[in-house]
Amino acid sequence: MTKEQISTYFQELQVSICNALEKADGQSSFHEDNWLRDAGGGGRSKVIQNGKIIEKGGVMFSAVWGDLHEKMLASMGLSDKVDFFATGVSIVLHPQSPLMPIIHMNVRYFEMSNGTFWFGGGIDLTPHYVVEEDAKWFHNYLKTACNKHNEAYYPKFKTWADDYFFNSHRNETRGIGGIFFDYQKTDGTRTKEQLFDFVKEIGESFVPIYTHFMKKNKDFPFTEKEKVFQMLRRGRYVEFNLVHDRGTKFGLETNGRTESILMSMPPVANWVYDYHAEAGSEEEKTLGLLKKGIDWV
Amino acid sequence: MTKEQISTYFQELQVSICNALEKADGQSSFHEDNWLRDAGGGGRSKVIQNGKIIEKGGVMFSAVWGDLHEKMLASMGLSDKVDFFATGVSIVLHPQSPLMPIIHMNVRYFEMSNGTFWFGGGIDLTPHYVVEEDAKWFHNYLKTACNKHNEAYYPKFKTWADDYFFNSHRNETRGIGGIFFDYQKTDGTRTKEQLFDFVKEIGESFVPIYTHFMKKNKDFPFTEKEKVFQMLRRGRYVEFNLVHDRGTKFGLETNGRTESILMSMPPVANWVYDYHAEAGSEEEKTLGLLKKGIDWV
Repeated sequence: MTKEQISTYFQELQVSICNALEKADGQSSFHEDNWLRDAGGGGRSKVIQNGKIIEKGGVMFSAVWGDLHEKMLASMGLSDKVDFFATGVSIVLHPQSPLMPIIHMNVRYFEMSNGTFWFGGGIDLTPHYVVEEDAKWFHNYLKTACNKHNEAYYPKFKTWADDYFFNSHRNETRGIGGIFFDYQKTDGTRTKEQLFDFVKEIGESFVPIYTHFMKKNKDFPFTEKEKVFQMLRRGRYVEFNLVHDRGTKFGLETNGRTESILMSMPPVANWVYDYHAEAGSEEEKTLGLLKKGIDWV
Repeated sequence: MTKEQISTYFQELQVSICNALEKADGQSSFHEDNWLRDAGGGGRSKVIQNGKIIEKGGVMFSAVWGDLHEKMLASMGLSDKVDFFATGVSIVLHPQSPLMPIIHMNVRYFEMSNGTFWFGGGIDLTPHYVVEEDAKWFHNYLKTACNKHNEAYYPKFKTWADDYFFNSHRNETRGIGGIFFDYQKTDGTRTKEQLFDFVKEIGESFVPIYTHFMKKNKDFPFTEKEKVFQMLRRGRYVEFNLVHDRGTKFGLETNGRTESILMSMPPVANWVYDYHAEAGSEEEKTLGLLKKGIDWV
């Protein structure tokens, strides 16, 4: 299986996800931008705004190549120049309703001219209000998907997500996590095909997972108070992505396409100085569940 | 002059600035929080929200001490442990009106147990809409203030601000700059008193500068279109502070008081995918003026 075949699959995945989301949203559709990278490759950014359910979101495909950036060479302990090829799909959706979760999904493949290659990816959920039944359903879905491939995946990748999606400066997780994995390489127990099958499984889990929440929540009314809290949680989402997210930082530092990288920003976010949830409120309950290590399954 | 005397001056400066801003705003007042740092020292955060002119802002004083953080030791090329003392005032104000500029001011003093000490600071302006007359007035005010102390200051510190307040991932300056300086130490031409006098000059320039804009703009009506643009410019302000600002990054990485560090966040900020100003519009004119190296005086 070649990098081109993997990339073509990702490009098709982008299309199928956008079609399913447009159908489920029923109001807005994706606007498409094609872009080329001066140093090699390019991508297709598909962005939806002002939907009935999705307020702002992006489903981004890219396949880029060229000389590996010196920062990345250094981080890998490599001294000689190498070429790289990177391709993937990355999604962030910010819903209109505070009762719907923000979702993030990413699947990616990376290959270097020295022969090394690996897969990465994950799906994680950031509910504005944590609903325990939904969190259990989500984590069970991911566990079942992982277990089709390797029973070690879910516990390992769930912990990885808890550790990665963490706003250390707030001492809280971004949301209820999910799975996150990187540097998944072939070894005695896994062929390239098997790794790719797992990544496909994750990529194809996105639509059933998010449309489940779209169907469940689309007709629920919400209050002004819930909307206010949503805006504050979006502020935390901004903080995570701009302060901690490695992909965002790396992209901005290495002259990536800013609009595609920052499609993850919410349409509106708020900050209030020294916010504290009322004792006994739903908001306080949610903040109490933004911790690492909760066993949802 | 001792570090305690410098710190006491900064504490008094905080009070006088807050009094003047409350008077000029006429509607809201500052809410005060005192905080202590586990590792030594503390501060007083004064935050105003929902004013007539100021929508959200903070005037923060701190005086902290302890072991110098290993990241900072490394950045200074120091291998032995040293104690530090740092004190200063830091301000960010987000106005209600898109016709009023966002302002940032900082004055600070840093001393180490190895005998090294320096001053830093600056004032810079981020108009949502750049008004050339205002930009000239602001830069002339700063130049005059600098020239009372040293004619080399304004050109040097103006360039420093252009380079520092730069959103490299957007290839645009945060606003119209101002002055920024750091590591100002005594040498054959400058005593500690002279440096402190200069820093006082900058600290005391804040009120005349911002109240000038408060008086000038407070009764100007604005449009919905201008409000929309203000929200996008605030998004850029968030990006600068979370992605590039060294003080913010350092504070968040070293367990600073998050609420005080992030008082610089606007109350509301927006992001629109791939925004482009209309040809010939005021918004386009402003974007064209967010460049380094404009000579405003």
